[in-house]
Amino acid sequence: VEAEDAAALSDLLEPLHPADIAHLLEQIDARDRRRFLLVQSGPLDGDILSELDENIREEIIAQLNPTELADAVRDLESDDVVDLVEYLGDQQQEAVLEALDAGDRVVVEQALSYPEESAGRHMQSELVRAPEHWTVGDAIDFLRSDVVLPDQFYHIILVDPRLKATGYVTLGRILSHPRAMPLRDLVEDTFRTFHVTQDVEEVAQAINHYHMITAPVVDDDDRIVGVITIDDAMAFLEEEAEEDILRLAGVGEGSLSDRVIDTTRQRFPWLAVNLVTAIFASMVISLFEDTIAGLVALAVLMPIVASMGGNAGTQSLTVAVRAIATRDLTGANVWRVIRREVLVGLINGLAFAVVMGVIGIIWFGSPMLGAVIAAAMVINLVVAGLAGTVVPVLLERLGIDPALASGAFVTTVTDVVGFFAFLGLAAVWLL
Amino acid sequence: VEAEDAAALSDLLEPLHPADIAHLLEQIDARDRRRFLLVQSGPLDGDILSELDENIREEIIAQLNPTELADAVRDLESDDVVDLVEYLGDQQQEAVLEALDAGDRVVVEQALSYPEESAGRHMQSELVRAPEHWTVGDAIDFLRSDVVLPDQFYHIILVDPRLKATGYVTLGRILSHPRAMPLRDLVEDTFRTFHVTQDVEEVAQAINHYHMITAPVVDDDDRIVGVITIDDAMAFLEEEAEEDILRLAGVGEGSLSDRVIDTTRQRFPWLAVNLVTAIFASMVISLFEDTIAGLVALAVLMPIVASMGGNAGTQSLTVAVRAIATRDLTGANVWRVIRREVLVGLINGLAFAVVMGVIGIIWFGSPMLGAVIAAAMVINLVVAGLAGTVVPVLLERLGIDPALASGAFVTTVTDVVGFFAFLGLAAVWLL
Repeated sequence: VEAEDAAALSDLLEPLHPADIAHLLEQIDARDRRRFLLVQSGPLDGDILSELDENIREEIIAQLNPTELADAVRDLESDDVVDLVEYLGDQQQEAVLEALDAGDRVVVEQALSYPEESAGRHMQSELVRAPEHWTVGDAIDFLRSDVVLPDQFYHIILVDPRLKATGYVTLGRILSHPRAMPLRDLVEDTFRTFHVTQDVEEVAQAINHYHMITAPVVDDDDRIVGVITIDDAMAFLEEEAEEDILRLAGVGEGSLSDRVIDTTRQRFPWLAVNLVTAIFASMVISLFEDTIAGLVALAVLMPIVASMGGNAGTQSLTVAVRAIATRDLTGANVWRVIRREVLVGLINGLAFAVVMGVIGIIWFGSPMLGAVIAAAMVINLVVAGLAGTVVPVLLERLGIDPALASGAFVTTVTDVVGFFAFLGLAAVWLL
Repeated sequence: VEAEDAAALSDLLEPLHPADIAHLLEQIDARDRRRFLLVQSGPLDGDILSELDENIREEIIAQLNPTELADAVRDLESDDVVDLVEYLGDQQQEAVLEALDAGDRVVVEQALSYPEESAGRHMQSELVRAPEHWTVGDAIDFLRSDVVLPDQFYHIILVDPRLKATGYVTLGRILSHPRAMPLRDLVEDTFRTFHVTQDVEEVAQAINHYHMITAPVVDDDDRIVGVITIDDAMAFLEEEAEEDILRLAGVGEGSLSDRVIDTTRQRFPWLAVNLVTAIFASMVISLFEDTIAGLVALAVLMPIVASMGGNAGTQSLTVAVRAIATRDLTGANVWRVIRREVLVGLINGLAFAVVMGVIGIIWFGSPMLGAVIAAAMVINLVVAGLAGTVVPVLLERLGIDPALASGAFVTTVTDVVGFFAFLGLAAVWLL
């Protein structure tokens, strides 16, 4: 790219997988990307666009003229086209749609009409189906005829005369049986279908849970309209897990390639929430200003109790948030889990109470100060276990993403309880 | 199970997928599981064992006699058998291995000889291979002969006379071409192989990155010895993401079905580390006991600066830890990322400095106190961005899992810097 040598560049990129080229483009800066686009010869591979991070993809699409863009997307599968156009401006979206065949365009427009995050939005329409009365031989002859087949497919889906999906057969079974064998006798007993409006994350979880390769998607009349394949489900679950991690840390959906100002903006709200909760905790402390003025050692020790509670609370809430996401924490076992977490908090609280009590006595030579910090530690760790489980469960019931909001609530609780218990007990027992 | 009615139970479970039965077993308590095993008729399905959480699986295996266990595992694929036996006691492992055919036993023993977390340990040996000179017709005739085929397979792997893997063909391509077509002309250009000792996480990442369905695993002589399939890679990546989330929160590898005492023990070390860092922060505070005694408002406000730094640091480190895991953060862009994070810290620091300065003035009526907290805020948020990126990168270079250890280091840095900057500036400017 440096030398603006088109031939050398295309020699270099030729052996690379589109996913690798996309990865390269993400690592260089925007100026080099612009030069890359100018230098590279021939049309841009649509697969590279599909593999790019969203914001870099937008940047590159903005630099392509509609014809180049249309060339790039023509050979993509329908789910990749949908993924590309769904966040484009009207004018660019129009240009892409016009570049498609009439049939493909209808499919993409149909998919865009389903809700975001639905199976219908994420399915590919390319699939192979066969009447249920066919034999192995019929299927092979059909596949060898000059029909257009998907790039990759792993099942033939059987349909009845009204296109209702009734089962599927793996290609392996077709290949290993004689031509006269009816396909109907080879269907997998794990066959299940998903409705177009179903949450795509549920479909992906089912694919993982049942080791499926292809998840058939049906419309209101049970007619097969598309499939979600395991590789897309895998990429989707990876992204979801990623988002959960980042949300738990209050980072939102950022990526390293975002601009500084976007990242700053994304992180600001979480820090602002934290500021409010921290001020709330400070107000609790200010109730005890006289107590602290009477014994400054309290100011030295008080962050320890709050910090331990915050950490224990984060442990409990992380387990709870993930268990909710993976459906391991349900209405059926929520009480058992809460009891467990409180018990864990109690045992660890007692252990650290002993440790801190001893430290309090040695450091400040005051057994009563040791007793205060010990008691506050037990109280705060029990509360941390309780809040760490109850808060995400309640948020989930209220329809709020527990990964996003639990942290702020739980640390507020542990800070407030920690400072209040420690300073309150000190005020009563010490002064 | 309550009624101990074997027939009713097996009617109920009959339509369920092994993964669902495993999930059910995980949700009920140990006593009910024991009764389930007594009541259920016939041999236990090995697939159910495969799907169970590790500790529940151990519990159930301990209750089976060797013959029952051997019956259960006989029909499993080799990677599932390896997964089952690798953590069994010697006696149980012996019993399982003896139940297998001689050939399967050799395969499992071979797999167990590879390192944990290697491709060799996780691959399945069941695969379909063909000489590279075969045609489509040869392959179909072979598959229709009475060879034993894997349950699921998606590729035929081509090998040269010395069993060296040279390419693979998807079943879809075989089915859609005439019998006379040489397989060699149908190979996928994305073919790549993985060595038995390669980290299985790398293989799974590659499967996701390149949208592969089958990853061929080869030995030192490039001979094909197994495959890792996408469904196993998907399950593996899900587990890894899960572990990263839990490690970031200092929870380790726990699951909801662990015993209370195990969970307590798992969380204890992280809380202990946190206690040490909290005490370290307290020692910083104790340097300024006289300053606090002079102005108790400092004790009220000081947790705010530390808490904001801790949160900003956690944001930066979470992004860095994930970017390292997904290979988005490399030696090539580390300086750009550090500069970015520091800049984000600076901008957010300035924003919150203004907010806190104003609050300081209004709440305590002291412009100088406002200035102190504002300056400390900027310093701590810049340090948070710096530490949040540098710490995980350094830990990674030192060969320590950054997900596990970064949190403690980063919050220590932000606590110490936060308290020191705030109280230090207060000592100099206010008193």
